[in-house]
Amino acid sequence: MDLKFLQNLVVPAQTKIVMLIMDGLGGLPLEPGGKTELETARTPHLDALALQSALGLSIPVGPGITVESGPGHLGIFGYDPLEYRIGRGVLEAVGLDLDLAPDDVAVRGNYCSVDATGVVVDRRAGRIPSDVSRALSALLTTRIEDIEFLVETVREHRLAIVLRGPGLSAYLNDSDPLKNGYRPLPLVALNPDAEKMARVVNQFVERSRQVIEAYTPKPPANMLLLRGFDRVPHFPAFPECFGLRAAAIAVYPTYRGIAKLVGMQVLPVEGGTAADEFTVLEKNWNEFDFFYLHIKETDLAGEDGDFSRKVNVIEEVDRLLPRLMALQPDVVIVSGDHSTPAVLKGHSWHPVPTLIHSKYVRTEGIPEFGERACGRGSLGILPAKHIMPIALANAMRLAKFSS
Amino acid sequence: MDLKFLQNLVVPAQTKIVMLIMDGLGGLPLEPGGKTELETARTPHLDALALQSALGLSIPVGPGITVESGPGHLGIFGYDPLEYRIGRGVLEAVGLDLDLAPDDVAVRGNYCSVDATGVVVDRRAGRIPSDVSRALSALLTTRIEDIEFLVETVREHRLAIVLRGPGLSAYLNDSDPLKNGYRPLPLVALNPDAEKMARVVNQFVERSRQVIEAYTPKPPANMLLLRGFDRVPHFPAFPECFGLRAAAIAVYPTYRGIAKLVGMQVLPVEGGTAADEFTVLEKNWNEFDFFYLHIKETDLAGEDGDFSRKVNVIEEVDRLLPRLMALQPDVVIVSGDHSTPAVLKGHSWHPVPTLIHSKYVRTEGIPEFGERACGRGSLGILPAKHIMPIALANAMRLAKFSS
Repeated sequence: MDLKFLQNLVVPAQTKIVMLIMDGLGGLPLEPGGKTELETARTPHLDALALQSALGLSIPVGPGITVESGPGHLGIFGYDPLEYRIGRGVLEAVGLDLDLAPDDVAVRGNYCSVDATGVVVDRRAGRIPSDVSRALSALLTTRIEDIEFLVETVREHRLAIVLRGPGLSAYLNDSDPLKNGYRPLPLVALNPDAEKMARVVNQFVERSRQVIEAYTPKPPANMLLLRGFDRVPHFPAFPECFGLRAAAIAVYPTYRGIAKLVGMQVLPVEGGTAADEFTVLEKNWNEFDFFYLHIKETDLAGEDGDFSRKVNVIEEVDRLLPRLMALQPDVVIVSGDHSTPAVLKGHSWHPVPTLIHSKYVRTEGIPEFGERACGRGSLGILPAKHIMPIALANAMRLAKFSS
Repeated sequence: MDLKFLQNLVVPAQTKIVMLIMDGLGGLPLEPGGKTELETARTPHLDALALQSALGLSIPVGPGITVESGPGHLGIFGYDPLEYRIGRGVLEAVGLDLDLAPDDVAVRGNYCSVDATGVVVDRRAGRIPSDVSRALSALLTTRIEDIEFLVETVREHRLAIVLRGPGLSAYLNDSDPLKNGYRPLPLVALNPDAEKMARVVNQFVERSRQVIEAYTPKPPANMLLLRGFDRVPHFPAFPECFGLRAAAIAVYPTYRGIAKLVGMQVLPVEGGTAADEFTVLEKNWNEFDFFYLHIKETDLAGEDGDFSRKVNVIEEVDRLLPRLMALQPDVVIVSGDHSTPAVLKGHSWHPVPTLIHSKYVRTEGIPEFGERACGRGSLGILPAKHIMPIALANAMRLAKFSS
């Protein structure tokens, strides 16, 4: 059941869908047998909503697979993350809010350290300080022949590099050997159309090496590695696939970028709190059929290993929920793009608590929103990409399939 | 999500996984509404482990599909049994502990009875006694041109035949018409490279017919049928796919053979009891990252329709479980390769109770290991091939998927 199949069934309706995503929502207990972050949180509004919802656990890509934000979000947006891929460089670039044009190529860069013989001794250049990294990146930004190279520091050694100009190609190998102890690889055209690309990128790397070497005070880095050349992916647009005027409400650039890649309209958010995001939702309520509302702080707390801060963020979102429900959406989805248990201090493979509410779901009589409650739910263990079709059905936006 | 995808995510770790397989574990109650074999068994250790585990029901190949040992095991080893096939002859040969070389071809044989016009009247030759069958097989073992034919009785009319020599091919039709009332088919080369193969195999069949006819006392069989010519399959090796030093502990040749086909190291077991197998586990604990431990007697009791013997075997394994847990494995899987309900006296399609234990699973608070308990578990109904990725994730052996 692919996007084309769904698109052919989509019918117009006057209904509204809200997808509330708490990033890294799923968790684990501090002690085996204990309660997870979500189970610990006092969430009277989510619990009341759960009682009127269908519950389940969603799997972003596959059993046992831990995902980054890119594939995690594609899944909840209804795209198969194994079919639709976002290149590493593109994801870094959208994460920096860089404007990518359809013909641009983006690539992920690393400042690194090589020894006198040119062998990489530290792929991360001792995690070079971000301010040094930014100063270097400004100097690396240049033009070679008719190609612009825009270099931006993500953080420390991590760079996003956008190439703009005629005759670009993404068919170039990575120069990053991915391990210390090897020399950076020369960049080679992987098909004949990429000859010019290889030529200018090799010049860019050599120029970058000289610029870094000439920089004072001498930085820990002395070389640049590149990997993941890719164009902006041309995904089928979310609004057309699903027949929805779709808005994204997110504070962090990565999520705004992914939403933009699938063709959602990204709304400006004044201030950076969850409450500010709910205000944007209210103000734009009449203009769209679908709202993706993204809460980042659950994931940040999980990554920091801060169980109780993650609990607090969930409780804060719970307190805001009545503002969402007051808008009387036809369908509400509450879920995450993946799990980020505080005990693991990072993303994990655990299925994500998921709730789908509408007038037409079969409710389960489970008055709780949590991992174990969702594990008893009638949605079962479902691939994240199945959430959108179920939401569309509940919004009366899918016609009958006859043959 | 195929093996290649997983292999690209595998990272090294110092963790150990034990997969305890009770063959034919799943069952049915004697009376509708009653308890299954596993539910009847007194299993305090398995129940305690279930309380600290994630539970589910696994499906070897697909809903409603009953499997033989071959596909059943490929599934729990993480291979898609519909993609990776083991020829019938190869499975019979590995079941006899015959050493198969990469260029050998194996085929399944049947002693059968034909009438005066050559029509098959009994494909099983009245289930010819095994001792007669063995005497005949010794006489059929021969050499034709430069090809060796090794004929071995599996049981009664069932034979494994291994062909060894230059220029073999597996592109030959079956001579077995699969139904009584038809003549055996002549063997035909299905591609030009199989001409020699067709020639020598037709000679072999004719020679075999004459040898059987000349045998005294006159056996119930008077002909030989062949089906499933195949080479030893070249599966991606389990240790490389999953980054695990993998050991198999099994008493029965078929299971030792399947483990060997996927590249596990098969450990010798002195004595044939379950306790002997646990001793091998203990002795080799430091040498491997992954242990497949196979208990055959659950299946044998089920095949015999002996409900209470199957209960007893499960209770015996339960008593041994503390020896396994004392080794402090990071991940423990308890499952079966398929169901063998005593009331059906054979393999069945019923999903198999499955438990996955680690520090990082979400436990369900279900203090029981049984079919209905597993049906309430958060693993849901899962394809057997998903067990390995989940186990690898829990053993912290899978990297994050970015795009």
